Amino acid sequence: MSKKLTIDVCVSPYLYPVYHREDTIVVIIDILRATSAMCTAFHHGVDKMIPVATIEEAMDYKQQGFLVGAERNGIQLEGVDFGNSPYSYMSEKIKGKTIVLSTTNGTQAIEVSKHAYKVVIGSFVNMTALCKWLQVQNKNILLLCSGWKNRVSLEDTLFAGAVAEQLVKNGDNFKTGDGALSASYLFESARHNPYKYMRNASHAERLAALGLKEDIRYCLTPDQTNVIPVLEGKYLVKMS
Amino acid sequence: MSKKLTIDVCVSPYLYPVYHREDTIVVIIDILRATSAMCTAFHHGVDKMIPVATIEEAMDYKQQGFLVGAERNGIQLEGVDFGNSPYSYMSEKIKGKTIVLSTTNGTQAIEVSKHAYKVVIGSFVNMTALCKWLQVQNKNILLLCSGWKNRVSLEDTLFAGAVAEQLVKNGDNFKTGDGALSASYLFESARHNPYKYMRNASHAERLAALGLKEDIRYCLTPDQTNVIPVLEGKYLVKMS
Repeated sequence: MSKKLTIDVCVSPYLYPVYHREDTIVVIIDILRATSAMCTAFHHGVDKMIPVATIEEAMDYKQQGFLVGAERNGIQLEGVDFGNSPYSYMSEKIKGKTIVLSTTNGTQAIEVSKHAYKVVIGSFVNMTALCKWLQVQNKNILLLCSGWKNRVSLEDTLFAGAVAEQLVKNGDNFKTGDGALSASYLFESARHNPYKYMRNASHAERLAALGLKEDIRYCLTPDQTNVIPVLEGKYLVKMS
Repeated sequence: MSKKLTIDVCVSPYLYPVYHREDTIVVIIDILRATSAMCTAFHHGVDKMIPVATIEEAMDYKQQGFLVGAERNGIQLEGVDFGNSPYSYMSEKIKGKTIVLSTTNGTQAIEVSKHAYKVVIGSFVNMTALCKWLQVQNKNILLLCSGWKNRVSLEDTLFAGAVAEQLVKNGDNFKTGDGALSASYLFESARHNPYKYMRNASHAERLAALGLKEDIRYCLTPDQTNVIPVLEGKYLVKMS
């Protein structure tokens, strides 16, 4: 019998140092909308993405001729090619391309955890494929919520709870930390209608105010792709 | 109409800098067992408590002749007068005394937030009195969970959710952050049997292994006192 593996949830990138362990797979979660957009982009044939934490880095890449997606506070920056909407990443023009991406929260979470054993991208959009893959890795798992400017966000915690519950249900070798337990209970109570559940969430309000309700619906719809983006050096690539 | 007030939950002392605002009442929460013990001590007539973050400070006070409570990892330190069990703080010998207290988590949370507008102590033990008082302060409220060595703890988040829910139900002037919203949903799903709910919580397991199940039951029993301990300089005193 192998040693029991742990699964836990870290609700903010700011808290990551408290949860860091070298032998752990980190799942980056930014449901509204960075990790949903990343999964969508790889599903639609993007070759690589380069997540960068700062606008300066993104603009440097832009000057070098890269396609760039950059967003702050829900709004696409001027002079770049994409914002953070998954719908931007469904076109033919991204096929085979490398896209640089900088967002308010999601790319920050990648930055803090980039030295973990492995970093992968999770969202409702690729949830079942992600869970199946995590289930058989025989590694500790940390679900890292990007949150909102280092604060807890409801939708990221909900998704983390959905994954934790799924993994525990399908395998008896996981021990849950209290973060995972809280998130699972939270998801349990939202299971039947996450969209309604989210009506008070601060970032959903923020996006609705920007006219992005369709984005929210898309980002809360499970299993639209089987791709799992994974970090390799500075690149996100599609896991083979 | 006064400006809408915010109520939020910070799930770890490590995250406090992200949530800090000067015009905010901070409620320190360490259900198992520091803040439950503090409320109990004031109910039983202690005059002042001095929360200190380090064992060294606690031992300095001991040498000066103070009564000292000190605990790490659930176990009372050698050479001090009390541990962290509420039952230790029910005796005649504490009446009118000043007690120095250092615990694994709760006193750390006080240390990080001591420059807030006001710092008070919350637990199920004084819950209704606390909520009534918070309701009429006309201030922003941050419920600060002590957690376990800076990680999320289920019982602290549950209690924070109970308070947030109560305040929002009884007053329409609070706007909840996502931390408060998540904690409220969590409490909602545990409402009917928090004791059973807690069976998988890591610190409850830890205390049960130390033979402290009675402590857990006591700490989850609401409204055993009306006292609200409040920080004044370096002292906790009973709010008058």
